[in-house]
Amino acid sequence: MSFSLSQLEHPIVLAPLGGGPSTAALAAAVSEAGGLGFLAAGYRSAEAVRAEIRELRQLTERPFGINLFAPGPALANSSALGGYASTLAGEAERYGVALGEPVHDDDRWDEKLALVADEGVPVVSMTFGCPSRSEVEALQAAGCAVWVTVTTAAEAVSAGEAGADALVVQGVEAGGHRGSFDERTPGDVGLLALLQLVRDVTELPLVATGGIATGRGVAAVLAAGATAAQLGTAFMLTPEAATSPAHREALRERGPTALTRAFTGRTARGIENRFMREHEADAPHGYPEVHHLTAPVRVAARERGDADGFHVWAGQAHPLAAELPAGELVRRLADEAREALDLARRALTHRAEGGREDA
Amino acid sequence: MSFSLSQLEHPIVLAPLGGGPSTAALAAAVSEAGGLGFLAAGYRSAEAVRAEIRELRQLTERPFGINLFAPGPALANSSALGGYASTLAGEAERYGVALGEPVHDDDRWDEKLALVADEGVPVVSMTFGCPSRSEVEALQAAGCAVWVTVTTAAEAVSAGEAGADALVVQGVEAGGHRGSFDERTPGDVGLLALLQLVRDVTELPLVATGGIATGRGVAAVLAAGATAAQLGTAFMLTPEAATSPAHREALRERGPTALTRAFTGRTARGIENRFMREHEADAPHGYPEVHHLTAPVRVAARERGDADGFHVWAGQAHPLAAELPAGELVRRLADEAREALDLARRALTHRAEGGREDA
Repeated sequence: MSFSLSQLEHPIVLAPLGGGPSTAALAAAVSEAGGLGFLAAGYRSAEAVRAEIRELRQLTERPFGINLFAPGPALANSSALGGYASTLAGEAERYGVALGEPVHDDDRWDEKLALVADEGVPVVSMTFGCPSRSEVEALQAAGCAVWVTVTTAAEAVSAGEAGADALVVQGVEAGGHRGSFDERTPGDVGLLALLQLVRDVTELPLVATGGIATGRGVAAVLAAGATAAQLGTAFMLTPEAATSPAHREALRERGPTALTRAFTGRTARGIENRFMREHEADAPHGYPEVHHLTAPVRVAARERGDADGFHVWAGQAHPLAAELPAGELVRRLADEAREALDLARRALTHRAEGGREDA
Repeated sequence: MSFSLSQLEHPIVLAPLGGGPSTAALAAAVSEAGGLGFLAAGYRSAEAVRAEIRELRQLTERPFGINLFAPGPALANSSALGGYASTLAGEAERYGVALGEPVHDDDRWDEKLALVADEGVPVVSMTFGCPSRSEVEALQAAGCAVWVTVTTAAEAVSAGEAGADALVVQGVEAGGHRGSFDERTPGDVGLLALLQLVRDVTELPLVATGGIATGRGVAAVLAAGATAAQLGTAFMLTPEAATSPAHREALRERGPTALTRAFTGRTARGIENRFMREHEADAPHGYPEVHHLTAPVRVAARERGDADGFHVWAGQAHPLAAELPAGELVRRLADEAREALDLARRALTHRAEGGREDA
């Protein structure tokens, strides 16, 4: 029988955290604590993904999910990419590397679909687009529940038509890439508004994500009709995460975030830094070409510990990220969510009974 | 004794809806239904504001609030304003009017502070800045509760230091003007993230606003720790609102919203239209100079029923605005909020008791 969200002891899902912080240990800790751990397949070879799935299964027998990047059309022409490469020459020099090759690819989509079906991964979530109905059905036949990330009500309708089992509803607060189907028109709706708008067009279970960092935040999305909350940045300071030292330091400094496509050619939210300020105006829509172009610079900056030179992904609530073991954080979030719902409900009852006379 | 939010039968506050939809009848209907009605003092003479307060008091004896625009520094020089005026020449011609005089003013701040104190208005909320401690204390001495609109955690700290009784926490989803203290750096945080960030720095009661259109939305902000929800766009299609016919029509068409300063020189959210698209790139930060400059064009476009030529303010959840009498809407929102909290709480209890065995 395939995975259902109601199986979870706690309505807490780990965000995939691709490109750095994701580890099997983090996913296992979240699943073992009664939430749902997640792995990230993006940017990696199918062999590496399979090895990580097996590593995770050594650590826990509980359900977990894996996130795939849905492939999209090539949006940038070679002149736009060449122009952007020219503006980045100083970055390559600064960090002593050559820029990468701005190639278009599909992140080995078919290979990874086959892999997750073969492994019977309990939950397969998709970002950057909607799989076809036949792709969804093939995964479901292999025992996978299919979740599709949406940033607008229109995307929610499409995902429902494709047969998704649940929707990951991503508010504009979220750290990392916007999951929009079309990068040229990324959904920019706040999570709470988006949950109401999506609930209006679908009965599918919703997993809310974007700017949730506390038990109150979890309680809020449950009250808004979500079945679970997905948190990413909130787990980035846990010891199980592979968040780089420079990234951890930037999170602790609590600076403001902004949306940018300077790093990857796809809109994403990170802590504002020099690279974003200097290159945002010139960056074309062109994912994953720009990702490949800037990758050597970003790897070098991260290794050097220079948080002004790479993508410091973070959601808008990142100043509330806790430095706790991941399992403890799951339990704390769930306890606080229960308490927050109780408090809110009691306050409403008190009003209904006594508010009027006091006025 | 001054007003306390716990007096309200329902935790529903009407947003001020300045510059059009606000009426005494709408405010009275919300207060009579057990919520808190609000009037808008911005853009109007003190005499007109006093007359409306008295009109409202004929309609209800219940508490209500009034919103004032806190004055700010002149940000635009005459060359920037002159340049913007040149780009608007075609608009003036199109609608057969002359552009207005781009003067700086303080919206009669001192006069209005004296007026609301003299009238003993139960709640006085401020937008666009933080009053001084002595201004806050003078209002409190006159029996007014003082609420300050904030869009960042730093603004919340300042408002607390000034002695505010409560904070209106405005998420980026909100329709109309951003309430930011400094227009050049408007807070862009989603409501749910902002509530968590603000709760982390203050114990003051919070009134959540921005993209709330359903009882689930109300329940969510209460769960996140707010004492009440403030809704604006959700009331714009009620019969008591003075929303113009063209504005109502645009709301019914459910188009996307965007942030713009093209109309007033201050960042605000409205339904995307031709005026925004054509002038956004040229508009300086310059409130209220740009407001005065474009006002004749906007009045003429609105009278002509041309929703492409004036500010069609709307929050991100505007497609969910209901066409219901305002009092009925207040009661429906409160009922649905109670139901949403009960559902969420029950789902959590069920997990804690049974989730683990099913897995």
